[in-house]
Amino acid sequence: MMETVSTAKAFGGTQGVYRHASQATGTPMTFSVYVPPHDQGTILPVVWYLSGLTCTHANVTDKGEYRRHCAELGLILVAPDTSPRGDAVPDDPAYDFGQGAGFYVDATQAPFAQHFRMWHYVTAELPDLIAVHFPADLTRQSIMGHSMGGHGALTLGLTLADRYRAVSAFAPIVAPSQVPWGHKALGGYLGQDRTTWRRHDAVALIEDGARVPALLVDQGDADSFLVEQLRPELLARACAEAGIDLTLRMQPGYDHSYYFVSTFMADHLAWHAERLR
Amino acid sequence: MMETVSTAKAFGGTQGVYRHASQATGTPMTFSVYVPPHDQGTILPVVWYLSGLTCTHANVTDKGEYRRHCAELGLILVAPDTSPRGDAVPDDPAYDFGQGAGFYVDATQAPFAQHFRMWHYVTAELPDLIAVHFPADLTRQSIMGHSMGGHGALTLGLTLADRYRAVSAFAPIVAPSQVPWGHKALGGYLGQDRTTWRRHDAVALIEDGARVPALLVDQGDADSFLVEQLRPELLARACAEAGIDLTLRMQPGYDHSYYFVSTFMADHLAWHAERLR
Repeated sequence: MMETVSTAKAFGGTQGVYRHASQATGTPMTFSVYVPPHDQGTILPVVWYLSGLTCTHANVTDKGEYRRHCAELGLILVAPDTSPRGDAVPDDPAYDFGQGAGFYVDATQAPFAQHFRMWHYVTAELPDLIAVHFPADLTRQSIMGHSMGGHGALTLGLTLADRYRAVSAFAPIVAPSQVPWGHKALGGYLGQDRTTWRRHDAVALIEDGARVPALLVDQGDADSFLVEQLRPELLARACAEAGIDLTLRMQPGYDHSYYFVSTFMADHLAWHAERLR
Repeated sequence: MMETVSTAKAFGGTQGVYRHASQATGTPMTFSVYVPPHDQGTILPVVWYLSGLTCTHANVTDKGEYRRHCAELGLILVAPDTSPRGDAVPDDPAYDFGQGAGFYVDATQAPFAQHFRMWHYVTAELPDLIAVHFPADLTRQSIMGHSMGGHGALTLGLTLADRYRAVSAFAPIVAPSQVPWGHKALGGYLGQDRTTWRRHDAVALIEDGARVPALLVDQGDADSFLVEQLRPELLARACAEAGIDLTLRMQPGYDHSYYFVSTFMADHLAWHAERLR
C-alpha cells in the first residue's frame, strides 16, 4: 500500500511525494518520484537519486533542479530517504550516523540491524513498489547520488552492474573504509571485521573485481570535505588500474552544496539518458 | 554596511545571501543576490524577484530554478525578504498579515507604521545597497514576483514605469482592494480609507491611468487561491480597457507552488532579458 502525500504539476509532468509501510525497515518510508510528460501507455526509464548525510527525499526534490531535464529527456527520477526514521529507530546524536545516515547498507550490528536495511530497501522493496505504481520500465534503470548518496550510487552500481546502465555521482565518498565518516558508519552498522566493509566501499569493490563500463563523477575543488572524507584520487587510481572509463571532473570553486549539484545535474541526466536509450 | 551570510558558486556565478541593518524598516534585513558569470569590470541588468506570503528570500533561492537562466542571459537576480522580522516587530497570528506579509507598502497605521516600510525598502534603500556592492547596471532593472510578490511587482512596475523595463508575475494578487487577503492587509497597514489603497492595487492603478507597454502573467488553473484571491480576469479587463499588452497565460493543471513558478521561470527571464538589452 502506498499513500500519496502530495502531487503537483511541474514541467508538464508530475512531482509526487509518497509514503508506505516498509517491510525492509519496519518503518514508514517517504520518497519522491517525478514522472515526466509522456504518452498514455508508454513506460519510461528510471533514474535513482541517492541523497547525502542529513538529507531526506526533500533536499533534491526542492533544490536539485532535475525536473526540466527529466521532462526533456523522458526520465522518471526516484529519490528515497536516507534511513529509517522515528522514535522507535535507534539514532546517534551526531549528523553522520543513525537517522539520516543509513549509508545504503543492511546493518548486521545491534541495535541497528532491525531497521537499517537501506540496501535491501533501495535495491528490492522500493523498485517493486515503483513498478506497480508508476509507468516505469525497470529494464532501463540508472543510479546517481550525492556525497553519502554518491557512495550508495557507486556501490549499488558496481554490485548490480547488470541492472544500472549508468552510474554517476556528485562529490561521492569513494572509499569509506579509508575515511572518518566511513569508519564510524561501517563500523557501527557492520562491525569491526573490516572484510565485511569491502562490499560497501567503491574502491575496494573495484579492487576486488567489480566492473562497470564507465563512471561520471563531479567534485568541487572548494568542497570542505574533499581532502578528509571524499578523496576522489583513490577512485581515479582504482579505475585506472581496473580499466574503468572514469570521467572525474574537478570543478573549480564549487562547494559541497546543492548549488553545486544543481549546476551539473543537466550533464549527469544527459549522460544517463544516452545510456538508457 | 552589509554582512555576507553565505556565498556559493552556482552555474559559473555566485549565489550569495546578505544581511544589513535597514533604516527603512529599523530591523536587520536578509536578501539574496545571484550574480552570473561575467567579465571583470562589466555591469549587468538587475531583475527583482518579490516573494509571496510566508516567504523569505530563501524560497525562491532554493526552489526558483533561476540560476541556469540568469547565467545564460547575464542577469543579476535580487530576492528581498517579504517583511521586517524580529521580536520587536508587530505580528499577527495569521499567515497573511504581519511578519512574512508586508504587501510591499509603507504602512501608515499603528503599530505597523514604524517597521513595515517595504515599498521604501525595495524601491530605494535596497537598490542603493545593490549599486554599491554588486556589478549592477541600475539603468536596466526589471521586476517580477509571485502571489503577494506578483502584486508587488505589478504595483511597483506600474508606479515606477520609467525604472522597470519589464514587469511580470506568477499567480499575482491583481486587485487586493477586491479580495480578502487585500482587505485585511491594506486595511491593517493603510487604514479604512480605501482611496489610499488604490496606489497599491494594480487594477486600480491602471484604472487611474498608470501604464506600462506590456505585462506577462502566468496563472495555474488548479491554483486553490485563483477564484477568491487572485482573480486574473480583473487584470485582463483593466488591461484591455487601458490598451496594455497583457499576455495572460492560464496554465492547465498547475497549482500555486514553486513547482509552478520554476516551470515558467525560464520564459519570464527570457522575456525580461529581451527588454533589458
